[in-house]
Amino acid sequence: MENRQWRLRARPTGMVDASHFEKVAVALPSPGPGEVLVKTAFISLDPAMRGWMNDTRSYIPPVGLGEVMRAIGIGTVVASNDPAFVAGDLVTGPTNVQEYAVAPAKQWFKVAKDVAPPERWLGVLGMPGLTAYFGLLDVGQAKAGETLVVSAASGAVGAVVGQIGKTLGMRVVGIAGGAAKCKYIVDELGFDAAVDYKSEDVRAALKKHCEKGIDVYFDNVGGELLDVALAMLRKQARVVLCGAISQYNNEGGVVVGPKNYLSLLVNSARMEGFVVFQFAQRYTEGVMKLAGWYGEGKLKAKEDVVEGLEKFPDALQRLYRGENFGKLVLKVA
Amino acid sequence: MENRQWRLRARPTGMVDASHFEKVAVALPSPGPGEVLVKTAFISLDPAMRGWMNDTRSYIPPVGLGEVMRAIGIGTVVASNDPAFVAGDLVTGPTNVQEYAVAPAKQWFKVAKDVAPPERWLGVLGMPGLTAYFGLLDVGQAKAGETLVVSAASGAVGAVVGQIGKTLGMRVVGIAGGAAKCKYIVDELGFDAAVDYKSEDVRAALKKHCEKGIDVYFDNVGGELLDVALAMLRKQARVVLCGAISQYNNEGGVVVGPKNYLSLLVNSARMEGFVVFQFAQRYTEGVMKLAGWYGEGKLKAKEDVVEGLEKFPDALQRLYRGENFGKLVLKVA
Repeated sequence: MENRQWRLRARPTGMVDASHFEKVAVALPSPGPGEVLVKTAFISLDPAMRGWMNDTRSYIPPVGLGEVMRAIGIGTVVASNDPAFVAGDLVTGPTNVQEYAVAPAKQWFKVAKDVAPPERWLGVLGMPGLTAYFGLLDVGQAKAGETLVVSAASGAVGAVVGQIGKTLGMRVVGIAGGAAKCKYIVDELGFDAAVDYKSEDVRAALKKHCEKGIDVYFDNVGGELLDVALAMLRKQARVVLCGAISQYNNEGGVVVGPKNYLSLLVNSARMEGFVVFQFAQRYTEGVMKLAGWYGEGKLKAKEDVVEGLEKFPDALQRLYRGENFGKLVLKVA
Repeated sequence: MENRQWRLRARPTGMVDASHFEKVAVALPSPGPGEVLVKTAFISLDPAMRGWMNDTRSYIPPVGLGEVMRAIGIGTVVASNDPAFVAGDLVTGPTNVQEYAVAPAKQWFKVAKDVAPPERWLGVLGMPGLTAYFGLLDVGQAKAGETLVVSAASGAVGAVVGQIGKTLGMRVVGIAGGAAKCKYIVDELGFDAAVDYKSEDVRAALKKHCEKGIDVYFDNVGGELLDVALAMLRKQARVVLCGAISQYNNEGGVVVGPKNYLSLLVNSARMEGFVVFQFAQRYTEGVMKLAGWYGEGKLKAKEDVVEGLEKFPDALQRLYRGENFGKLVLKVA
């Protein structure tokens, strides 16, 4: 049996494409002492992946050239050398972009098969959900009655951010690209309003929907949207820096800085970044809350499933072009 | 008797100069009920003044065209219609840029004549000192053992920030322009190191002086220095946005945003702005602490005194060119 995988062949300087990866087939790995072998079912395609491909100092080391591309996935235990897992268990963890993965037992997390379809553990009940939960509540210090604006609002993180905002009693405005996504976040997810950045004047639309200004801006996008939001901050507002997908594929890695950052000064406001890993000790708390809301129907989920490991580079490009609608996952088996 | 004053004639689009002001002489004002007439001794020249000249939404309304230019000053009570003040009292308050000022009693603060020379109440013991105190301790959450970097380090705020950092037990590195200012902050103020942005590679120098990176960056300058500092943040670092003097006189008011702002994300760090007025309820606490350190010799002061009200526009330009050395004040009487 063989294990097909995508390895990093070259570091992109601008938009990532298939030329940066190499598809190889190697022998099926065997788990060593304390290790677990997992057959990948779904791989999560995340905005953060582009950053992992750069050879720069960050919150985790870059993927090395020639290494299997890093990814979080969900799959089934095939063989285990640790008593915590048995064959057939459904687990999430570092599958990376391949059909079979071996990793130490402590890197895998067993999930309940009857709570949700497996791909959902990569979305609302997984890292994106936890990112939304800790980002909005801990970093953003969101409170009932405040006005929340979230960018990439129909995306994996944004959709959860907005829905948690509604459960808190906030006014929630989402920014998304295209009529379908805007209709979805209002009609299906219960946002108070949506702004279509592809067809509307975002500044004018946000002014209309946020009459008092913005208390919390949850930013997944960066670029111009961040500048528009900064100009509308209320006193003591919080800008949560979760991502900047508009900037990740800039040629040469040059990022456009927010020219309105001095709005933070005159409004005594804060811009704060985070990575979900800093809340690792509280994942159980977060998953319990998310699963509770999900069970009550307060947290709706939508995945965009691309089938076939061979589609990985194309699917990744769809993500950075904003062409996915819902949490983007790659179905492997 | 007449009252000479500088009024705002035109709003600058770039560098402020004498053409934006008009020197006029009017009749000496009389204090109305509850008001106090003060003869100005010194006027504080502050970086914030440039922002007050722009017709944009900010933390206070802009100075109106034809109005006396806003300034904080110190002077002597000439006549008082409030029992809290008598002729001869030394007070700080909204003198604005003129020889005599009338304002309601609650806008003036009486200061002790024997603690320090009068101009010092516009510096270490005044708003700049309070700005440093609340900015470093409350906004910056500075702690012993951490590494603090402050820009405009020999300036009115920066010099106090660094000295408070030393009293806390921090490693303190200052960025200043020119050998004399750098020598001063190390030899006289006790900073651990100085970086001369005019002659040194700031990035290389900061790397040498901050081996572990930066925990607190207290920014008075913005621009390139902010970007260099952002790239060196440690985990959970705090960037205190106090000012951006490098940007205030940009043509058309266009500010250069910090392209390295995503360092906040990967380092779970924060950038937070403030204006000292938000701490108004705690000014007494702040002044007591500052006066205590000053009395113990832990807080040294240096003023750069320009003599003569007629020099106001020139002195203001010196400030924005970084030509002053120490807290810049205009001696009026």
